[in-house]
Amino acid sequence: MKAGAVLLLSGGMDSATCLWWMKQELDGPIHALSIDYGQRHRVELECAAGLAARAGVPHKVVGLDLGAIGGSPLTDPGLAVPAAQEDRQAATVVPFRNLLFAGLAGGWAEILGLEAVYLAPVKDDYRSYRDCRRPFYDSLEQTLGLGASREQGFAIHTPFVDKWKTEVVALGLQLGVPYELTHTCYEGKRPACGVCDACAERLGAFAANGVKDPLVYA
Amino acid sequence: MKAGAVLLLSGGMDSATCLWWMKQELDGPIHALSIDYGQRHRVELECAAGLAARAGVPHKVVGLDLGAIGGSPLTDPGLAVPAAQEDRQAATVVPFRNLLFAGLAGGWAEILGLEAVYLAPVKDDYRSYRDCRRPFYDSLEQTLGLGASREQGFAIHTPFVDKWKTEVVALGLQLGVPYELTHTCYEGKRPACGVCDACAERLGAFAANGVKDPLVYA
Repeated sequence: MKAGAVLLLSGGMDSATCLWWMKQELDGPIHALSIDYGQRHRVELECAAGLAARAGVPHKVVGLDLGAIGGSPLTDPGLAVPAAQEDRQAATVVPFRNLLFAGLAGGWAEILGLEAVYLAPVKDDYRSYRDCRRPFYDSLEQTLGLGASREQGFAIHTPFVDKWKTEVVALGLQLGVPYELTHTCYEGKRPACGVCDACAERLGAFAANGVKDPLVYA
Repeated sequence: MKAGAVLLLSGGMDSATCLWWMKQELDGPIHALSIDYGQRHRVELECAAGLAARAGVPHKVVGLDLGAIGGSPLTDPGLAVPAAQEDRQAATVVPFRNLLFAGLAGGWAEILGLEAVYLAPVKDDYRSYRDCRRPFYDSLEQTLGLGASREQGFAIHTPFVDKWKTEVVALGLQLGVPYELTHTCYEGKRPACGVCDACAERLGAFAANGVKDPLVYA
């Protein structure tokens, strides 16, 4: 059994599954952290809070004004979110988002006296998001160790990095993850749009498991 | 001559000197970035804006709610700022502050099509701040290269990392840096308190150069 950790909980399916998996795997306390980065899909933050409450773990939201930097349709209302298949996920990149999120999680972990951060990138993210690949996290792990206030080890765990989203959902269904509490749609709509790249991926993952997605779609 | 870059401009002496030095050294555009991280010394942000205006470079402020994480007297009003000599700078550490700042600067650089970030840690920071040391920046440079949206080089320049603050001020006096526009006091007071660790260091650096600090002290 492993000691406690900070988990980056987005409110989406992958990190929700990671939370339930960590509850099974970890011995120490789990602290969930969400980042309010001006995302268009802000409903995620409410979902993250609901998931943490359901899981019985403390939850914190930290504000990070990535909209001030701009450049991504996820934070810039002037840019359109690409439909599925159009340019896959490339146009939705927020530069160094995961570096910033992991750095915030690392900072909170340090203050809590913990030395581990969990994130839930999945294999489907690999192609378009370079900051969802393990070589990036290996390097970041070293950087965090060098930059921590005290000399200490720092681990970044990405337990699903080699799993397809379909496999993650299969695991989550076994673990009883309340997927009706998660949010995926990039448009930030409730009911979910069902057409954006994120919705398309989600629906595909449930279909591959022969299970109906408990979410309501437009 | 080098291409353009993003400079993290705090409003303090070191990054102000770096800005004037870059104006002499760089050929391409310089973009100044300041982070509003809930710092007690918020007057820094006004100073940064004034310095950028005087230097004639664009300036952006990005919000980062480090106060939500807490743990440092620089962001937590409930904690006292240590007086000079007490515990040097150790108690004023904000975990991974420079990682987060460099990540934001890297993100903005990427959007601007630039591949270089400048920060101005000085040798005096070395002892207490592990994220002011070059091995940390070497590692972070690699991490940024791996995490950037596109495959590209990413350079983090720290031109003053081997210079004492006294030497930086000597350089700045030659370059005509308007030090009266900079802010240093950790207490965030105007006139500056003159007693906190930061004020003590600043006064020492001017004294060592045989020059009167143009700032007003309480």
